[in-house]
Amino acid sequence: MTTSVERPEGYLPQSPSTLAAYLSCVADVARILGGNPEDWTIREVGDGNLNLVFIVKGPMGGVAVKQALPYVRLVGESWPLPLTRAHYEHMALSEQARLNGSLVPRVIHYDQLQALIVMELLEPHIIMRRGMIAATVYPRFAEDISSFMANTLFFTSDLALPADRKKQMIAAFAGNTALCKITEDLIFTDPYRVAELNRWTSPQLDGFARRWREDAELKIAVSRLKLKFLSSSEAMLHGDLHTGSVMLTADETRIIDPEFAFMGPMGFDVGAVIANFLINYLSHDGHEESPGARDAYRDWVLVTVEAIWTMFRSKFLDLWRSNGTGDAYPASLFADAAGAAALEAEREAYMERLWRDTIGFAAAKMIRRVLGLAHNIDLEWIKDPDVRASCEARVLTLARDLMVNTRHYPEIASVTAAARAIRTQKLI
Amino acid sequence: MTTSVERPEGYLPQSPSTLAAYLSCVADVARILGGNPEDWTIREVGDGNLNLVFIVKGPMGGVAVKQALPYVRLVGESWPLPLTRAHYEHMALSEQARLNGSLVPRVIHYDQLQALIVMELLEPHIIMRRGMIAATVYPRFAEDISSFMANTLFFTSDLALPADRKKQMIAAFAGNTALCKITEDLIFTDPYRVAELNRWTSPQLDGFARRWREDAELKIAVSRLKLKFLSSSEAMLHGDLHTGSVMLTADETRIIDPEFAFMGPMGFDVGAVIANFLINYLSHDGHEESPGARDAYRDWVLVTVEAIWTMFRSKFLDLWRSNGTGDAYPASLFADAAGAAALEAEREAYMERLWRDTIGFAAAKMIRRVLGLAHNIDLEWIKDPDVRASCEARVLTLARDLMVNTRHYPEIASVTAAARAIRTQKLI
Repeated sequence: MTTSVERPEGYLPQSPSTLAAYLSCVADVARILGGNPEDWTIREVGDGNLNLVFIVKGPMGGVAVKQALPYVRLVGESWPLPLTRAHYEHMALSEQARLNGSLVPRVIHYDQLQALIVMELLEPHIIMRRGMIAATVYPRFAEDISSFMANTLFFTSDLALPADRKKQMIAAFAGNTALCKITEDLIFTDPYRVAELNRWTSPQLDGFARRWREDAELKIAVSRLKLKFLSSSEAMLHGDLHTGSVMLTADETRIIDPEFAFMGPMGFDVGAVIANFLINYLSHDGHEESPGARDAYRDWVLVTVEAIWTMFRSKFLDLWRSNGTGDAYPASLFADAAGAAALEAEREAYMERLWRDTIGFAAAKMIRRVLGLAHNIDLEWIKDPDVRASCEARVLTLARDLMVNTRHYPEIASVTAAARAIRTQKLI
Repeated sequence: MTTSVERPEGYLPQSPSTLAAYLSCVADVARILGGNPEDWTIREVGDGNLNLVFIVKGPMGGVAVKQALPYVRLVGESWPLPLTRAHYEHMALSEQARLNGSLVPRVIHYDQLQALIVMELLEPHIIMRRGMIAATVYPRFAEDISSFMANTLFFTSDLALPADRKKQMIAAFAGNTALCKITEDLIFTDPYRVAELNRWTSPQLDGFARRWREDAELKIAVSRLKLKFLSSSEAMLHGDLHTGSVMLTADETRIIDPEFAFMGPMGFDVGAVIANFLINYLSHDGHEESPGARDAYRDWVLVTVEAIWTMFRSKFLDLWRSNGTGDAYPASLFADAAGAAALEAEREAYMERLWRDTIGFAAAKMIRRVLGLAHNIDLEWIKDPDVRASCEARVLTLARDLMVNTRHYPEIASVTAAARAIRTQKLI
């Protein structure tokens, strides 16, 4: 983390009153908005964590503007954060767009000095997490997120790339250390020790928090995952792939906000999606109108998380079979029938290793959302603290078992079965 | 690999007739040599693989000068190789010197444009491989190489470094792709397919070469190691740590030539040392004056390779216990008694994983020295091709079992026992 707030010469945080003048000088943006700057309406809508976000509308159309601040917006200037995160976000968006087309927002303008990205306005898309809290079914999501992950992770890995191109990408993202450090601290470390930024539903979960801090087996498991996060450069990650980083309608999915992007272990992204589905699944007892009212939605959540893994696995394997042009497992070694059969078996073994990583990382992300700094509104919006704590205790208990007893979960169906079982338990 | 030979403006390959004038302008060098340039004697001694190497002596002292050529010297301009390798060598030497003091040659002068490094003259040190072919005992070597590897690998890993410093190092070495590519091709790929550059003792080993190319289990195993080499950034490697990269006397050890340095998997370096000892062990049947004449030396080789691993393991663990300041396994998580005990058990588990990597990489290095482009003089200097092939067949057979049945070798003693057993077998 940097230790003081940057103020580069010429960098100016925008406000609704300054932004129209700035955008009027960007021809591509002015053309989309239409009319004159005085016709444009500008709202700041950043929900507060890190950045400024503006919605700009003109007579012809709209855009979204995201600008980095040199500190964490939620906390203030006492927590500096480099403006370069906009550079990494832009780089990741470009690569994701190349690999996934319209599954990421289209970039209209990027200004490195201002750490500012103008993107297509996603409307009427909403943040997926909010939709899932309201029990909205998204029939396209499994298809889209599995494609996004399979394409992005496969095509930026050694299975697809020559080593020199892969190392260029590693170097290109190696500077995004401040954002990685947030993950390293808040996901892999703080929830397992006394840390100022931790918070949980208290006093209901005090005993859980203490036991989690004293659980040596769990702390070794999460530290082994952290080591993998630190040292394994498998592919370009989104780095923050939860349901708050998805905007969608029933028909369209957009993956946003890849400012945590870097070259890391694939299971971290896949695990993030699975974790957030499991959290949502276990949160509806705090939201449903009457007991059982959301049973059908709960079923949809678990069927969908199963589909996400199953489709991801299948698409990734298909990409490997058809586009395995990388320097790892070179095709020239496996051209004969015995080689082809052995390589196919190794592909399955590779996916088993990736699966184990995935549920370990999923578990880490579930625990941090209950005991760490940043919580999910899936749980936070449960008003009754006893009910909330009861849901959170299930999240913690499931996550601990996923992380420590990973081998008890050989497939996604065993994870969803465990989620169903734990939901019936009164843990608190 | 680059596709054409670089000729940067101002870069001039030196010759014995030009070098004195160049060095006379480098005050630190002129001071060491003493006298005037016309008093200096200059010999080109590069043994031919990649670079120019000069020994320069003056009335007061001597220096060694190493200059990169923009191609592989052994092959010529048809195989371009970037001059930047001198930059990576210099960076690695600097870091190794910081961590290991005089276990690496002292750098007196570095010229980036000329891709030229002036180092202390190592005299009367000889290349270790030559000494071992002549059955010379080196009583300090296990102590020194285990320290070198433990210090370098531990202190450049996530166990010692904060993540931002580690990522800086990853970025700093990420450009050394052409040298990494040599390793990727010549060690992990070519020996397992028909490749123009392969050579072996023919016709004696033709059947072995064919079976190795058709061995799907072995090709999967070596490809899994290659994937680790491509994607695992554990620590700063020397990258070419065989006995030809060691110059020593009975009293002093110097590790030279780290131009293959990059951030990779630790087992690759440790495995290189072990591989070269095992090759040497199995070569003496082609060198000894009469059967059994070198039994005592063979014993020394195996006792020493056991000591290398055992001492490395012990030193690495001690460094971790006393200097575990890195972002992996953060100390604050393991401060209580249960945490400390769990962390100590995890350290042992970590070393077991590193051990498995080590013998896998050792095996890969043994096979490439028999079936690939670059052979070891340990074997090459055996004049009788039938005897040489017989030794080489043992190297191949031992290596295959180490790589495919890694779990049969839980400790270094099982490796040396297997080496002893295979030496008694007539395989060809």
